[in-house]
Amino acid sequence: MSMRSELAESPTVVARLVTAAEPAIRAVADIVADRRPGTVVIAARGTSDHAAIYAQYVFGARNGLIVAPATPSLSSIYDSPPRFDGALVIGISQSGRSPDVVSVLADARAQGAPTVAITNDPRSELASSADVVIDLAAGPERAVAATKTYVAEVASIALLSAAMSDAGDAMTELRSLPSAMNETLAAEPEIERLAWARSTMPACAVLARGFQYATAREWALKLKELTGVIADPYSGADFQHGPIALVDEAFPVLAVATTGAALDGMAELLANVRERGGRLLTLSDDPRFGELGDAVRLPTVPEWLAPLVAILPAQLFAFHLAHARGLDPDSPTGLTKVTLTR
Amino acid sequence: MSMRSELAESPTVVARLVTAAEPAIRAVADIVADRRPGTVVIAARGTSDHAAIYAQYVFGARNGLIVAPATPSLSSIYDSPPRFDGALVIGISQSGRSPDVVSVLADARAQGAPTVAITNDPRSELASSADVVIDLAAGPERAVAATKTYVAEVASIALLSAAMSDAGDAMTELRSLPSAMNETLAAEPEIERLAWARSTMPACAVLARGFQYATAREWALKLKELTGVIADPYSGADFQHGPIALVDEAFPVLAVATTGAALDGMAELLANVRERGGRLLTLSDDPRFGELGDAVRLPTVPEWLAPLVAILPAQLFAFHLAHARGLDPDSPTGLTKVTLTR
Repeated sequence: MSMRSELAESPTVVARLVTAAEPAIRAVADIVADRRPGTVVIAARGTSDHAAIYAQYVFGARNGLIVAPATPSLSSIYDSPPRFDGALVIGISQSGRSPDVVSVLADARAQGAPTVAITNDPRSELASSADVVIDLAAGPERAVAATKTYVAEVASIALLSAAMSDAGDAMTELRSLPSAMNETLAAEPEIERLAWARSTMPACAVLARGFQYATAREWALKLKELTGVIADPYSGADFQHGPIALVDEAFPVLAVATTGAALDGMAELLANVRERGGRLLTLSDDPRFGELGDAVRLPTVPEWLAPLVAILPAQLFAFHLAHARGLDPDSPTGLTKVTLTR
Repeated sequence: MSMRSELAESPTVVARLVTAAEPAIRAVADIVADRRPGTVVIAARGTSDHAAIYAQYVFGARNGLIVAPATPSLSSIYDSPPRFDGALVIGISQSGRSPDVVSVLADARAQGAPTVAITNDPRSELASSADVVIDLAAGPERAVAATKTYVAEVASIALLSAAMSDAGDAMTELRSLPSAMNETLAAEPEIERLAWARSTMPACAVLARGFQYATAREWALKLKELTGVIADPYSGADFQHGPIALVDEAFPVLAVATTGAALDGMAELLANVRERGGRLLTLSDDPRFGELGDAVRLPTVPEWLAPLVAILPAQLFAFHLAHARGLDPDSPTGLTKVTLTR
């Protein structure tokens, strides 16, 4: 099974997860209603860390929760974990075998904090370290580059947010997502063409703000893993703060800018990038970006769910760019599926 | 006044801060003893964000506190700040004029959470939004690239950690730091030579783990701001997880690896980088890295304070690399000192 066919399963995976994960999601919502944590600590590495970044925005904006990344090395190499009382602690790992994510959950549980594992292997060490397990049930992911499991991790966070919130339409919005995702996959021929048109780029910046910042991070990681392009992700605000100095004639900039509170700021930033001569490719549901450079048109979905739609063309772009550069996205050089980082 | 002379003031700035900031530091320690927050939320952008990353490690490992980045756009563009009750909220900004950092502190204060400003302008809007102001008192910083104010921000975090901790020798360790910093500055001729030897590199990875991860982030930012080199920072653990695929013959890798719990893991990673043909430059107090490539030897200081020493050769390297590439580090293209990001 290849990366390409696995990523195309994402709409099905999300549709299944919305139903199958319901009891686990409900159990977490009950814990939160009971213990009322003010902070959610999330331990994750690599791709899963980007699902954690999505959580910072969605749990913050929609649930009023502070989200802290776990700095796993405090548990794994410094043996000095913080005090987790008053926090909900979530570990995210596709394989469930990342030792430093496991060690954070073990420390939190030993301290009596409620723990949740989000993993594609409900029999993994991570799962057995947690009070509640959200099984991604995404099916085997054989490609080294994670695609459908990232989407399922983000969807799990969205489901948790919906269950902890009073917004009555959240679940309805989530249920209509798979059809928007399928619509997005139909843009593949155009994405393939745009990737081939960038086959020689040595480096690029990847920009987004707000909810989509997670998408920029994951897009950049996929590019680095699969294509050897030195892809540097930024929140639009930080990019403006300094690294915009990198942009000169034909410097490639990839961007995600979808409808919502962050849109106007992104439009201003990208116009600035264009003025400096940057070569833009924007994933957006807003037609204005077609005037600044290349653009892939996305369906409009509620802002908090837009990362689940935008990641699909980003993954497809990385897949086709690998091919365009003569590389095999199913056998990226030097990568292994599970990194046993301590 | 140039970047070069400002960065050389850092030892003096730290020596002054240790004494002058004492009342403000004490006030924060009293608030913490009284309110017992479990989580510290830190709002910062750009260079100051790297002082916040240092805080994640030092407050976590030495004070048992959970540290959460503030995701300022939740306040500034989404108008949906999280509930800050139970948290201590710190804003870090050299100028004190970053609107989204100010907006986080304003939201936190409106909710009744204790607030601290760390800034070089005690009359700034940020300062007037906070219960306690830690004045960096670093003197005017005219160069666009922040150097001594970054060092002073990190030193402020170290002082806060010392004041909140029972470790009796922490203040003694801090007081002996300026002499180690001066010793490090003496390596400048060698750093200049190593920078000129890399004048044509288009891109590089910058690696560190644990306390020094903040240094890797700040080193990479300085390189991007001043030299146009596409410098990508990673925690060693994340690099191993995928982006190590970028390393082939002569790929430039910069690293910070100093004595402490993270050292052996870094040594293993860098040996792996060397095996793939990567071209290493390591800042370290351990002689073993001289066998893997170029190395700048640092004095040994306590691990938690080592970022204050290692940043100096990193800043000097960026300064001399800019010159080697025909650029003026005092007039970097496209940068302004204060970015009014909302």
